[in-house]
Amino acid sequence: MKILVLGGDGFCGWPTSLHLSDLGHQVTIVDNLSRRAIDLELEVESLTPIRPMGERLRAWKEVSGKEIGFVKADIATEYDRLVGILQDLQPDAVVHFAEQRSAPYSMRNPGAKRYTVDNNVRGTHNLLTALVAVGLDAAVVHLGTMGVYGYDWHGQSSPIPEGYLTVKIPTPEGDIEREILHPTKTGSVYHTTKALDQLLFAFYAANDQLRITDLHQGIVWGTQTPQTVQDERLINRFDYDGDYGTVLNRFLMQAAIGHPLTVHGTGGQTRAFIHITDTVRCIELALDNPPDPGERPSVFNQVTECHRVEDLAELVAGLTGAKIAHLPNPRREAVENSLVVSSDRFLALGLEPTPMSDRLLEESTEIAQHYRHRVDHSKVIARSVWRSGMETAPDFSLDEANSSAAPNTGNQQGS
Amino acid sequence: MKILVLGGDGFCGWPTSLHLSDLGHQVTIVDNLSRRAIDLELEVESLTPIRPMGERLRAWKEVSGKEIGFVKADIATEYDRLVGILQDLQPDAVVHFAEQRSAPYSMRNPGAKRYTVDNNVRGTHNLLTALVAVGLDAAVVHLGTMGVYGYDWHGQSSPIPEGYLTVKIPTPEGDIEREILHPTKTGSVYHTTKALDQLLFAFYAANDQLRITDLHQGIVWGTQTPQTVQDERLINRFDYDGDYGTVLNRFLMQAAIGHPLTVHGTGGQTRAFIHITDTVRCIELALDNPPDPGERPSVFNQVTECHRVEDLAELVAGLTGAKIAHLPNPRREAVENSLVVSSDRFLALGLEPTPMSDRLLEESTEIAQHYRHRVDHSKVIARSVWRSGMETAPDFSLDEANSSAAPNTGNQQGS
Repeated sequence: MKILVLGGDGFCGWPTSLHLSDLGHQVTIVDNLSRRAIDLELEVESLTPIRPMGERLRAWKEVSGKEIGFVKADIATEYDRLVGILQDLQPDAVVHFAEQRSAPYSMRNPGAKRYTVDNNVRGTHNLLTALVAVGLDAAVVHLGTMGVYGYDWHGQSSPIPEGYLTVKIPTPEGDIEREILHPTKTGSVYHTTKALDQLLFAFYAANDQLRITDLHQGIVWGTQTPQTVQDERLINRFDYDGDYGTVLNRFLMQAAIGHPLTVHGTGGQTRAFIHITDTVRCIELALDNPPDPGERPSVFNQVTECHRVEDLAELVAGLTGAKIAHLPNPRREAVENSLVVSSDRFLALGLEPTPMSDRLLEESTEIAQHYRHRVDHSKVIARSVWRSGMETAPDFSLDEANSSAAPNTGNQQGS
Repeated sequence: MKILVLGGDGFCGWPTSLHLSDLGHQVTIVDNLSRRAIDLELEVESLTPIRPMGERLRAWKEVSGKEIGFVKADIATEYDRLVGILQDLQPDAVVHFAEQRSAPYSMRNPGAKRYTVDNNVRGTHNLLTALVAVGLDAAVVHLGTMGVYGYDWHGQSSPIPEGYLTVKIPTPEGDIEREILHPTKTGSVYHTTKALDQLLFAFYAANDQLRITDLHQGIVWGTQTPQTVQDERLINRFDYDGDYGTVLNRFLMQAAIGHPLTVHGTGGQTRAFIHITDTVRCIELALDNPPDPGERPSVFNQVTECHRVEDLAELVAGLTGAKIAHLPNPRREAVENSLVVSSDRFLALGLEPTPMSDRLLEESTEIAQHYRHRVDHSKVIARSVWRSGMETAPDFSLDEANSSAAPNTGNQQGS
């Protein structure tokens, strides 16, 4: 297949591009390099050393003999270029990762909120409009998020279904059964954009018969895939800062430098996880199984296991000997939640989940320990808050921290 | 109250501004005059003669002795100016009409689709972000649309509730009852933007305690209010073209020039209606009854009666002697639908609906007949389609039309 990967320079986009290229597909990456630009803005870098795109692609050619195309373009602001790319390449499928993907970043300040909405909604809508305008019947695979669902719809034991929910609507003539797009309850501007995307997908699938798959992904952990591990120039991102670093990466980084693991709130929040090798395999499965024209968007839950944050901290502490510290929670969310997620669709298509228990030690030693000399100690405490005036990290954790944790000079949150 | 009316130059915004000013509120209009710019783009004008904003405001001062402020600004693209306006004026309430509001226009071509999403979503999100950034606890009243609901959720007889739907979710422990934001099923890019707005409102009400009212309005008919009728310079818009002219206006215009009333499809589509005098009264009632901080957005159905399109055509035909012609339907929609709408909330607050039977003759004679010399005969047939290649109006209607209907040279639809 000819596959366009929008956002192919990012944490999920890059290993997906390599995986699809390795499978023999003709892959072209379109990316505005915004993830690198945000690193510059936040004054932070991936723990792993990320090479320029040209070097990444040359290394992949050396290692695999395969070529991946690259176009530097911004699908949110350069609509005409997007149309030109679609016309020139006539892709069979488009994988759409080209969105701002950090919830804390999306809440930092008015500019970040506006950027997240403008970039994500415009990018998605430009893609849909362009496919219709070009008349291209390419399958679209989009990365959504588990965060669209919210956590209190189903009681304690009923799993979150995949995208659609069967409900009964009471009427004078008795209950009517309907299958509806799952109601959303979003916890950040970022998560809200993925809920907006869903409604755009529903409209364009119905009106224009676009074939769209939306993947509601959990928190991705892990760094390497069978492709990225072949050469250090191909290595994938390991973000550990308070905005882009997800919970497990932050624990592993903290353990590697002897800092207490910072649990925000009680740690009773349960979240869904998936390893990056499973992510790229899921994209492959989604590409191989698109909906038919005229079908509603196909939604998969892209998740393999669920954990309480506190349990993850204990897992990493057990593996590394790190201590655990509790900090205020900057998010407006329930103190505790249970989470049971259906992910039957990918399992039925042959996904073989990578258990956290199998790979966590490797992640700790080969990534976090191996690159710990690259940690910026000012990024160890997360300080983005969900509303101005919310309590941020206190100093106690710094006092108690190992001496390798440099003092932090205060709240780095934007207005 | 100090009230900001965003989009106060438009068909609903202008009479609302006058009504609120007449009630003694301090009104400031913010508008980018986009409605006038789109008239230029479409090469069409309101049937009624619309004066420049400065002249409108001078006339209002002459007639009423009251001043309305005006700032020409674009809330979608001039965020910093919006922030400055909010800081300077410190309004108690913001009425948000500043969106592209035509469904056919939103489907004309890729540029119009993209403009509708970019303008509407960015404008709404900029307003919400700016209120949070400024720290202003102003009540927001937003004009939504009945078109977010879709028509097949409730069976034949159960009314569409106001914004939220009680459903039962089956679980292993039995059904759980939940009140959810009503599922959406949108029929155009325009309608989809109002569904996106709803999710932004839900998030900002929950995260930032913004007080938001969303008014799901039916098709507004009528032109004059007790304020606009006082001086011809204050007159409100009467749009009759295929994009911005709603069904009743188009029938009245067609009857006034002796053209057959053009019914698209079977005419079996049922739609909800409200007179413009009731619209402005509803805005007043919504402003007087905002939700409390921390409450979910308050949703009203702003509708007073429902009619089948065919029945409306017969009503106008009976009043005027016009013939009826059936044309292909450019919309992707059900051939027929029933529609029962709950509008108990406004009735409970004292709305006294203006029945169509009371005012339709006035509208026919004092507006459509009075200004029929201003009709552009090339705009009599609607030609926007929902997908490229769809059948548009055939020639027969032109042959059968009264000789006053000039021949139309073809499909004016953009790409």
